[in-house]
Amino acid sequence: MTIKVAVNGYGVIGKRVADAVTQQADMVLTGVCDIAGDWRIAVARDRGVPVYSATGEAGAGSLEDMVRGADLVVDCTPKGVAAKNAALYRDLGRKFIVQGGEKHDVTGHSFVAEASYASALDRPSTRVVSCNTTSIVRVFGALRRAGLLRRARGTLLRRALDPWESHLGGIMNTLVPETRVPSHQGPDAQTVDPALDIVTMAVKVPETLGHMHFWSADLVGRPSREDVRSVLAASPRVAFVQASEGLGALNAVKERMLDLGRPRGDLYEVAMLEDTLTVENGELFCAYTVDNQAIVIPETIDAIRALTGAERDAALSMAKTNRALTIIAA
Amino acid sequence: MTIKVAVNGYGVIGKRVADAVTQQADMVLTGVCDIAGDWRIAVARDRGVPVYSATGEAGAGSLEDMVRGADLVVDCTPKGVAAKNAALYRDLGRKFIVQGGEKHDVTGHSFVAEASYASALDRPSTRVVSCNTTSIVRVFGALRRAGLLRRARGTLLRRALDPWESHLGGIMNTLVPETRVPSHQGPDAQTVDPALDIVTMAVKVPETLGHMHFWSADLVGRPSREDVRSVLAASPRVAFVQASEGLGALNAVKERMLDLGRPRGDLYEVAMLEDTLTVENGELFCAYTVDNQAIVIPETIDAIRALTGAERDAALSMAKTNRALTIIAA
Amino acid sequence: MTIKVAVNGYGVIGKRVADAVTQQADMVLTGVCDIAGDWRIAVARDRGVPVYSATGEAGAGSLEDMVRGADLVVDCTPKGVAAKNAALYRDLGRKFIVQGGEKHDVTGHSFVAEASYASALDRPSTRVVSCNTTSIVRVFGALRRAGLLRRARGTLLRRALDPWESHLGGIMNTLVPETRVPSHQGPDAQTVDPALDIVTMAVKVPETLGHMHFWSADLVGRPSREDVRSVLAASPRVAFVQASEGLGALNAVKERMLDLGRPRGDLYEVAMLEDTLTVENGELFCAYTVDNQAIVIPETIDAIRALTGAERDAALSMAKTNRALTIIAA
Amino acid sequence: MTIKVAVNGYGVIGKRVADAVTQQADMVLTGVCDIAGDWRIAVARDRGVPVYSATGEAGAGSLEDMVRGADLVVDCTPKGVAAKNAALYRDLGRKFIVQGGEKHDVTGHSFVAEASYASALDRPSTRVVSCNTTSIVRVFGALRRAGLLRRARGTLLRRALDPWESHLGGIMNTLVPETRVPSHQGPDAQTVDPALDIVTMAVKVPETLGHMHFWSADLVGRPSREDVRSVLAASPRVAFVQASEGLGALNAVKERMLDLGRPRGDLYEVAMLEDTLTVENGELFCAYTVDNQAIVIPETIDAIRALTGAERDAALSMAKTNRALTIIAA
Repeated sequence: MTIKVAVNGYGVIGKRVADAVTQQADMVLTGVCDIAGDWRIAVARDRGVPVYSATGEAGAGSLEDMVRGADLVVDCTPKGVAAKNAALYRDLGRKFIVQGGEKHDVTGHSFVAEASYASALDRPSTRVVSCNTTSIVRVFGALRRAGLLRRARGTLLRRALDPWESHLGGIMNTLVPETRVPSHQGPDAQTVDPALDIVTMAVKVPETLGHMHFWSADLVGRPSREDVRSVLAASPRVAFVQASEGLGALNAVKERMLDLGRPRGDLYEVAMLEDTLTVENGELFCAYTVDNQAIVIPETIDAIRALTGAERDAALSMAKTNRALTIIAA
Repeated sequence: MTIKVAVNGYGVIGKRVADAVTQQADMVLTGVCDIAGDWRIAVARDRGVPVYSATGEAGAGSLEDMVRGADLVVDCTPKGVAAKNAALYRDLGRKFIVQGGEKHDVTGHSFVAEASYASALDRPSTRVVSCNTTSIVRVFGALRRAGLLRRARGTLLRRALDPWESHLGGIMNTLVPETRVPSHQGPDAQTVDPALDIVTMAVKVPETLGHMHFWSADLVGRPSREDVRSVLAASPRVAFVQASEGLGALNAVKERMLDLGRPRGDLYEVAMLEDTLTVENGELFCAYTVDNQAIVIPETIDAIRALTGAERDAALSMAKTNRALTIIAA
Repeated sequence: MTIKVAVNGYGVIGKRVADAVTQQADMVLTGVCDIAGDWRIAVARDRGVPVYSATGEAGAGSLEDMVRGADLVVDCTPKGVAAKNAALYRDLGRKFIVQGGEKHDVTGHSFVAEASYASALDRPSTRVVSCNTTSIVRVFGALRRAGLLRRARGTLLRRALDPWESHLGGIMNTLVPETRVPSHQGPDAQTVDPALDIVTMAVKVPETLGHMHFWSADLVGRPSREDVRSVLAASPRVAFVQASEGLGALNAVKERMLDLGRPRGDLYEVAMLEDTLTVENGELFCAYTVDNQAIVIPETIDAIRALTGAERDAALSMAKTNRALTIIAA
Repeated sequence: MTIKVAVNGYGVIGKRVADAVTQQADMVLTGVCDIAGDWRIAVARDRGVPVYSATGEAGAGSLEDMVRGADLVVDCTPKGVAAKNAALYRDLGRKFIVQGGEKHDVTGHSFVAEASYASALDRPSTRVVSCNTTSIVRVFGALRRAGLLRRARGTLLRRALDPWESHLGGIMNTLVPETRVPSHQGPDAQTVDPALDIVTMAVKVPETLGHMHFWSADLVGRPSREDVRSVLAASPRVAFVQASEGLGALNAVKERMLDLGRPRGDLYEVAMLEDTLTVENGELFCAYTVDNQAIVIPETIDAIRALTGAERDAALSMAKTNRALTIIAA
């Protein structure tokens, strides 16, 4: 059976989800919906994707029309809008996925494939958590499940804006720390894995390519660097990169994705900077990059399979998704 | 007959030329050669491209081996190196193309497809001029040949570094003008079209995406805006973009190329900002963007056909290249 | 007689005007007024400057109180606010100066000391034109009055935000051209010197230090470079800087001002990049920097003397101002 | 008795030390020495400072001449040069201070006024540690001496270049982590305070204004936020800034220093972002800024007094220095 997927909101995440859906053998993209009608949506139309209109003005039909024609809606509208759309999806009896800008309560379930696939099976809806939280659950969730993690403390350097919108509200030659400590990512990670002891501080930095995290963690016992490394290497969505190969900086990692032919140069993996991975006296230090535009795409694809029950095994779903998106295993 | 093309130097331009060659029906990529062995060259190797070594250390063989196996070599090595390599190509009786960092005298012929295809036919070698010069010849060469141009005066805003290397020598929160006026692009354009009366000033700006040119020009007579626009619209490698569509800034134009699925988001066209195109009292004002990493790629492909005589008609070669690279006509 | 000056609006320009007033032997600062009460205004209070409140909440009194206590008000409030304040100043019979964000019609007179001091004498009000326009009138007004200028065409690179506010709406790794050509500075310069034939294009660049202009101009006859240079050197507010001395980039020029002990590193002069000054075949090419935070400060001081008639000779007023602000003659 | 101080190396640090020396009642600047002769050194000459030449070419005399005429030399030459100059200072029997770029072994003593003034008394030489290390010793040294600190783990965001030189080797739209973990600042802090348990990671960020540190620390016992805050408030060179006052970002803090009339906008204090200061369950989280161009200047002045024995009490020396430099107590 092919899952009929519709995408509401055709921005940074929505257009990537739409493209990723078309790459899955078990899914079909039945339409996208947006309020805008500029060059972005024109690209979808030129590709033959049915374009619905949230404002009811033109195109293949209304948002409601699109929802009726789908098995499941991925809502990628701006923060807060999805919470309002949820009633429509429920009224029409359609499953749906919201993104990490929404609160956990909107769906009552938060999703990272490695951590909460099983509990998402057959549910009416879930929330794919934000880019930063996704990376935290991938890395520290893996270490916790392996019995290695006591707690982690992180500094999150956040790109100020996305590349395409960088002329709309960026920061220039400065650093802007979040004044609330801890920042929200630690509690957010606990919506997926309540046993995680995570505290983060965050700061906006003047670049547009993605986020970078720096961590110190207390481990259980005195594991070796290789103990830690092998747990991360076994993770299906953590990739190691080496500064000695010229891949130590954010922009070089991005260029490699372009060279590999990834669409839009997307990096779906957590790119762990292997040179920084240090384990000493029960402490772990490491740094990794997070492509905020792309990292949640494979999770969203897996969430589609989990909600619809199209694949009941998390590992098998992840394997399908990874193969379709050419994700590099570490 | 399929043209056997080898690429010496696998950097910003070389890797793009190599990829573009593989997309042409009448060409085959017989190998690439570089001195580096890091992640960049690894991508080529993973794709099955024979990798030769300029330092003779490893791989498919030496530079000489690669040259012997090809009909034509595209030399994309750093500025000044190609001038030294020319002797090897000549000794082995192979045709070759150098890039715009080299002097005109290295080959005695400079190439932009719209202006000098015919004179390149069957020559042993040519030089594809630099990104900025290519854009100037495309735009102002077209206006001159249409009898509309008296002279043009331009300010060239140059990206300080390429995206991937931006950590190696960039400028930060400043503007660095070239102190030599005029800058070299005007005289360089005359190596292709000696009748062009062009003077430019140049300044490095703190971004990595590409160049932007701002021009004022004196026209012949009192043509209308539409007269000028229709000449540019007829050019096969000038595309109009509209600020009213959200495409007024350098980064938005680049994002559109990524959305269109162009490899690495490459923009082969001069992207003329249509909103800025102003014609008044015999004067023209306009601004356009130049993707310094990509704009010379179609010219290089055409130059291969011209030197080898594989296609004797400039327009037909450009049509083949444009189709293979999905270039947008204005 | 000492001129009693009040400053309404204590932002980027207002705080500099206030400081400059206190440095003049013939003026006294009677107060400043703002709607904000944060660290910026606290600095004024700590220095013993009477702080009035535009919202009537606290401090030395209301805006009306401040106006009554002054001979003249310099209005440095955000664009459009001064136009509304003008009625109050007129009702209370006080002279006033507005800044270049306001339209010419607000006062019916526009001011650059070298060009329109005489016509400002004893007027009730004037408008000190914007930073870019001020630089244009200084440079090209001087050349025109010397009989050397036919017309000038310029590209204006504009800093996207001021240094202190750079986290509020900047641009990142992009260039954002103004789509309206010509941009407003040419017509604006004609409000001061109607005989100027100036057309400009403008583009926002990702830096915060100031603007940089690049010009090509048609001259009258065939003057030598020295002819042009000597006219500019005679201007009291144009300073030459040399790239050969390490002063070719915007940030280096700014650092020198800090080293000279200028308050806030302010550059009151047009800093003409002497290396770029080129005169050939009746054409002039040159580039200069404009400190958008500081260049209008000396003009504002002169405008105070002109409106009040405290000094009837433009050259003498400029000499007083320049000495007090340690302005460098070219 | 007035201490005769000479400064060797007139760059970012040297020019500030020279200026600060002239502001002390008990010191006199006898000369500066450099190899360069451009606009930077010209400013010193214009102020009447004797300028000696490291290359023996011109000016007031040779480096040796300058050293002979001084009681003490502050060496501010580039990294590694001071180590070579040390022999000259010793041969001529002059006391000297080197900067943090040099190794501890060059002088055998490392200096932060609050931590090692007493042990520097009457020594022939000392090393003022680097900007980052100075901030660490000020903040965590104070907490340790108060019995509150067990260990601290930090992420150091380092400006890529200084403002004036930003056109010489900056990073653009990327983040460049140091691959060596821990970075050198932790061990370096132990050269001043061996009991500090500090581990740091470092990353270059694309801005020029200064560094920002983010810390998590384990405390001794369960102190309150006020316990921690009062220790830091008692430190003579830590100042609190409030985001609620508009001082949450690096550039705003810098602007305030310019508004206060500090030379070059220098920030001698650690600026602790009070909003981020969080104490929970025996853990401390905080962020602060470090003005890498200025923070070591007061330490250098104190080091002069310690080596010469001109003031035997650390607190009294710091009070003199702070008053002369208008340093803000928290």
